[in-house]
Amino acid sequence: MNYPVIPPIDTLSAQQAEARQNNLTKPAGSLGRLEDISIQLAGMMSTPLPVVNRKAVIVMAADHGVAMEGVSAYPSEVTLQMVLNFLHGGAAINVLARQAGASVTIVDIGVASDFEPSLPGLLYRKVAKGTRNMAQGPAMTCVEAEKALSVGMDVLAQVAEQGLDLLATGDMGIGNTTPSTAIVAVLTGLPVRQVAGRGTGVDDAGLERKIKIIEQAITLNQPDPNDTLDVLSKVGGLEIAGLAGVMIAAASRRIPVVVDGFISTAAAMIAVGLVPDVRNYLFSAHQSVEIGHQAMLKHLGLLPLLDLNLRLGEGTGSALAFHLIEASTRILREMATFDEAGVSGKE
Amino acid sequence: MNYPVIPPIDTLSAQQAEARQNNLTKPAGSLGRLEDISIQLAGMMSTPLPVVNRKAVIVMAADHGVAMEGVSAYPSEVTLQMVLNFLHGGAAINVLARQAGASVTIVDIGVASDFEPSLPGLLYRKVAKGTRNMAQGPAMTCVEAEKALSVGMDVLAQVAEQGLDLLATGDMGIGNTTPSTAIVAVLTGLPVRQVAGRGTGVDDAGLERKIKIIEQAITLNQPDPNDTLDVLSKVGGLEIAGLAGVMIAAASRRIPVVVDGFISTAAAMIAVGLVPDVRNYLFSAHQSVEIGHQAMLKHLGLLPLLDLNLRLGEGTGSALAFHLIEASTRILREMATFDEAGVSGKE
Repeated sequence: MNYPVIPPIDTLSAQQAEARQNNLTKPAGSLGRLEDISIQLAGMMSTPLPVVNRKAVIVMAADHGVAMEGVSAYPSEVTLQMVLNFLHGGAAINVLARQAGASVTIVDIGVASDFEPSLPGLLYRKVAKGTRNMAQGPAMTCVEAEKALSVGMDVLAQVAEQGLDLLATGDMGIGNTTPSTAIVAVLTGLPVRQVAGRGTGVDDAGLERKIKIIEQAITLNQPDPNDTLDVLSKVGGLEIAGLAGVMIAAASRRIPVVVDGFISTAAAMIAVGLVPDVRNYLFSAHQSVEIGHQAMLKHLGLLPLLDLNLRLGEGTGSALAFHLIEASTRILREMATFDEAGVSGKE
Repeated sequence: MNYPVIPPIDTLSAQQAEARQNNLTKPAGSLGRLEDISIQLAGMMSTPLPVVNRKAVIVMAADHGVAMEGVSAYPSEVTLQMVLNFLHGGAAINVLARQAGASVTIVDIGVASDFEPSLPGLLYRKVAKGTRNMAQGPAMTCVEAEKALSVGMDVLAQVAEQGLDLLATGDMGIGNTTPSTAIVAVLTGLPVRQVAGRGTGVDDAGLERKIKIIEQAITLNQPDPNDTLDVLSKVGGLEIAGLAGVMIAAASRRIPVVVDGFISTAAAMIAVGLVPDVRNYLFSAHQSVEIGHQAMLKHLGLLPLLDLNLRLGEGTGSALAFHLIEASTRILREMATFDEAGVSGKE
């Protein structure tokens, strides 16, 4: 499979942004990470004065064969029900995206049941009716995984057609902390027990079952940590593959990606595994409650922007982080310099 | 001095908000602190469905006699220059308040020089031309401190006249981390060295000088930790007193206050020292870089919303936190319930 070329960070634009930050009417560095973000954005977007007017959330939905093992607190039909909730605007991501002025695109990349045709706002890009049960064999074939990656790249192209400055990734898929946990365990080499959490809220027995099932899936399928596509297809998910494709395509167009929580960060690990330079275009929105998330962020070398005990997914953390990222660009663009304002500098 | 009565938190409204949060289409608790905030707001504002449409930032500006001891990286005239920058809309707080849809009110409560008359947007409420040098004697008389508290209460009343749902506190005053450090040291009993930081950016020698001066001020003035007004007048500041007054008046009207960084939190310690129930109406916007801020938050029992390495003041952290607080109310109000959306609950 051919992946697009990722352009290098524009260090000149980043330097110009940094020089301007140091000349604005505040002690240099006093706006901390807001300053850093604006400088990173300048490098990513290749402009010394980035703007993030056009914002979008792409939510990929899919089901997971492994859900039949009782690894989730919710039944599989909730994936479909929540997609309908997204389309009616009643889910958390709808509320937070509205507040942030971001569009929401919902993609059926692998929900187990079929939707009625022509639902407004739904992209019908089903690769399969959910993955197979990874505790019994590979979740997907390599062909399916690559198809899902392609869907992600296509969807990004479609969403970006009218212009796009900032992207958030979101997920919906009952059972999807299970493949995400498998991915972080395989790619970091950490024991499953150390990175497995309660997802939507399984109890102690459920967590034990989940750990055993993930260990079984890894033992059975033997995913090769040095072959990212092998990991993705054997113990991944269709929405995870799709989101990885979205990230690769966004990075190729210099569109910064605000990676949401546990599932989106698993997708980021896949994307970076396949195309390492994608890493340069990623922000981490928040530190998830899900215990394995820290290991993911460490692996990627990303520092989360928020820490609000979130564990919902859907892109909710990213939509919240949009405000901070936008703030960084407004500071850079709208603040007066010391000269402009006639303010004395440091003594 | 008579302080207004602080109404008790409305626990019934808070319970109703919590019940609704648990019925929205997400695993209960999965939006973490956003859920908690909405429940707290319901109790503060005495409504099960709070809204925060009308937002304001009040910035109090004043000078400090102790600045003559070389405790700041910037000259005192920057206080006046920055007030003019605020009035022209070029400072960080202007930019971030615009983004958050909040008004900005600038108050001269004690700037050393006089402003031209009739500057649009400036409230002329000068109590004194800065404090006196606390290293040589009390910064203020008790009468001055109470006058500044009254100014704060009056200004809040004026800003709230047209209706106000959410308030941020901001400060401007070269040298004002020095009195704030003295306040936290006296009220917590911690050694000055443990709570003294670099403010706008003094070097090692400057920090040593600052510590010595604060120790000298405390030794000389002997502020009584059990008498908050004594602490405020001997080692405080006019903008700190004003902000404390703002907080007291806001709490008396059930207006939640988003406390900014080091200086605002020093003011919150004073406000809570004078009127303990004010504490129930406070949010902490962010964890400041300033080292003594943690001790302040611990003393007040507040958990910051953001941690972005900010150390600017002006209310900038609060304006950023406004987005999160507003998000919490939108989630509560706009999300569908499980019944409304036809989504299955936990198995």
